[in-house]
Amino acid sequence: MNNQVSMDIADETPPPGIGEAAPVTDAEVFRGHQGGKLSVTAERPISRPRDLSIAYTPGVAKVSRAIAEDASLARRYTWADRLVAVVSDGTAVLGLGDIGASASLPVMEGKSVLFKSFAGLNSIPLVLDTTDVDEIVETLVRLRPSFGAVNLEDISAPRCFELEEKVKEALDCPVMHDDQHGTAIVVLAALRGANLVLDRAVAGQRVVISGAGAAGVACARILQAAGVGDVTVLDSRGIIHPGRDNLNPVKEELATTTNSTGLRGGLGEALRGADVFIGLSGSTIEESLLATMAEDAIVFALSNPDPEVHPDVAARHAAVVATGRSDFPNQINNVLAFPGVFRGALDAGARAITENMKLAAADAIAGVAADRLSAQHIVPSPLDPRVAPEVAAAVAKAAESDGVTPTP
Amino acid sequence: MNNQVSMDIADETPPPGIGEAAPVTDAEVFRGHQGGKLSVTAERPISRPRDLSIAYTPGVAKVSRAIAEDASLARRYTWADRLVAVVSDGTAVLGLGDIGASASLPVMEGKSVLFKSFAGLNSIPLVLDTTDVDEIVETLVRLRPSFGAVNLEDISAPRCFELEEKVKEALDCPVMHDDQHGTAIVVLAALRGANLVLDRAVAGQRVVISGAGAAGVACARILQAAGVGDVTVLDSRGIIHPGRDNLNPVKEELATTTNSTGLRGGLGEALRGADVFIGLSGSTIEESLLATMAEDAIVFALSNPDPEVHPDVAARHAAVVATGRSDFPNQINNVLAFPGVFRGALDAGARAITENMKLAAADAIAGVAADRLSAQHIVPSPLDPRVAPEVAAAVAKAAESDGVTPTP
Repeated sequence: MNNQVSMDIADETPPPGIGEAAPVTDAEVFRGHQGGKLSVTAERPISRPRDLSIAYTPGVAKVSRAIAEDASLARRYTWADRLVAVVSDGTAVLGLGDIGASASLPVMEGKSVLFKSFAGLNSIPLVLDTTDVDEIVETLVRLRPSFGAVNLEDISAPRCFELEEKVKEALDCPVMHDDQHGTAIVVLAALRGANLVLDRAVAGQRVVISGAGAAGVACARILQAAGVGDVTVLDSRGIIHPGRDNLNPVKEELATTTNSTGLRGGLGEALRGADVFIGLSGSTIEESLLATMAEDAIVFALSNPDPEVHPDVAARHAAVVATGRSDFPNQINNVLAFPGVFRGALDAGARAITENMKLAAADAIAGVAADRLSAQHIVPSPLDPRVAPEVAAAVAKAAESDGVTPTP
Repeated sequence: MNNQVSMDIADETPPPGIGEAAPVTDAEVFRGHQGGKLSVTAERPISRPRDLSIAYTPGVAKVSRAIAEDASLARRYTWADRLVAVVSDGTAVLGLGDIGASASLPVMEGKSVLFKSFAGLNSIPLVLDTTDVDEIVETLVRLRPSFGAVNLEDISAPRCFELEEKVKEALDCPVMHDDQHGTAIVVLAALRGANLVLDRAVAGQRVVISGAGAAGVACARILQAAGVGDVTVLDSRGIIHPGRDNLNPVKEELATTTNSTGLRGGLGEALRGADVFIGLSGSTIEESLLATMAEDAIVFALSNPDPEVHPDVAARHAAVVATGRSDFPNQINNVLAFPGVFRGALDAGARAITENMKLAAADAIAGVAADRLSAQHIVPSPLDPRVAPEVAAAVAKAAESDGVTPTP
């Protein structure tokens, strides 16, 4: 694997509350985006007439004819089968909301930078000037011969659920909405790490998820797939339960599959005696509520840039605290998951990303953290170069077990 | 301009009939396409947590917010406005015909290699699994925020004419079907060079074009725009004239705008006394017909890989001979035009590619050939690194004169 992250930063976890030297300035940020962040380069330079005859006419005609006669050769002689399309309509960009396709492009370019930096994968940002789910699906179907996988990104809920299902149905290649599953994979990995630190079983926890958007829903599902029996999800109107009005189809499903003890009410009711709080809502949480959680609680305050609660405050009531920020310990960041997940899926030639592939990714991330496990280190650093290769290998193996790879 | 072609091959024109050392082997060709020919790389590497904070979260949010507030900033802080989409439906690939999107991809990757190598431009191949003109237009409209220009490629005639018109109408950016205009630009440049050698004026020539596909039609149009009054075009059924049945709309237009002397019949009738023959048909031409041309005739036998007539045979009856092949002198190759045309259009921020921009490109190419002008050197070598910068500068200037650039 062509991993461009050097080993010497592998163990660089900043101490609690202290960032890397001075904070990043606006000038530094804008300078870092000048002209865009990507470059398309030739794998082999053109410097002699012979190079032109090979890469272009007349040589290329032989390659095109060979693919026309045997379509499977496209995998060997084009970049498409190992190319990730990073696709967004700009409707739910970071914490900024519906800012449109063009304004979402810097984020998509950033993802392409990370795909290459962490997993050696080529990817292209495709931002769409439509928010119609069926039009997005149709567009990707028409572009299908151009790429080998689709990373859906920053698409608003609940549209993102329907869109992902339809794209998966329409395309015979790995498809993943990263805001859902990237987050869910890393949350599960972090929960495994926290429970190892606390010597508890993940399955026995009572987990409260605040937020029923893309990430909240996917977290609930992966935790249940990992054996957590008692998951309660809240949206802005409180605990999701079957008696509530006007639930969208995804929340209706959550109402029947989660909240096994039939809780009603808000965060106060949900958190009393809970073992785990996972904040994915962009709101804040009162310290007094955290004080009602069970002993040795786990608090993941994942909203960015402002966590639901400051980690120092959370630490008064919790044994393990994590955030999404790079300047506190235990950064729960999607970059731990998506580069390796797509790399593994493409390495295996998988035609889909299955639930087992996601669970395997979470296990692999947890495995990398295990050698230095502590309450301050339940997940690896986002820059740990071991993560993507380990995740890729685990995901490829799971793809084979699940029978979504080509038959030999 | 980031031009990756080294200067030392600038003047490398192979001697007549002799290629560069041994012919390119199949093994060499397929090896040169292994894994595809492109790579998407990060302009700035990610090696420290600080790099991640700048290129991705939290830094990127500032850039996205800035673009959401002022859309014009996308030009400065994303790659889109300088990115060329190389778009094909695979219906007319090289000499291979309708081989489909996937089999056309090696050609589109090759174009991207040339865009970067000759003009320092980023480009992405987008091959489409639809041949419906309106669906292709609709797809590009939806993808509009992702790129800054469209190079249409290897799309069958007469669909290509309608498609290009509709895409130009729908998008406020440079759009060019290279099989039409790239070829036409280089043919005009070569005709200027040949007439300089022969000390004749382009305008006074009687020109015969064999082939009324994408390239033939565009050549007829650009030659007329350059002042050639007497152009006759033939398709597989003979000379195009108003009395013929079943002409498609483009040929109907040609019937009224060309063939000013009202010729009827086939190549025999057309070539008698003609000054210039331009072969773009994929067929062959009898030596006896060439013998009927005017004195000091010009023969461009441009079909690939097999010219309409061997250049040695043509030379018995013509003062200047050119082909599309790299192993004969005077190679008329689109790569002399398209990298510089798009580079110039994007440099100028042009919202279209006008007729004057194409004429300026032809003049610039002819200008580069002028210092070594001879019957064996009417156009520069395709690898001459001066070409793309000269073309780009001329095209940008023409864009400004034509008022298709942003008002200051």
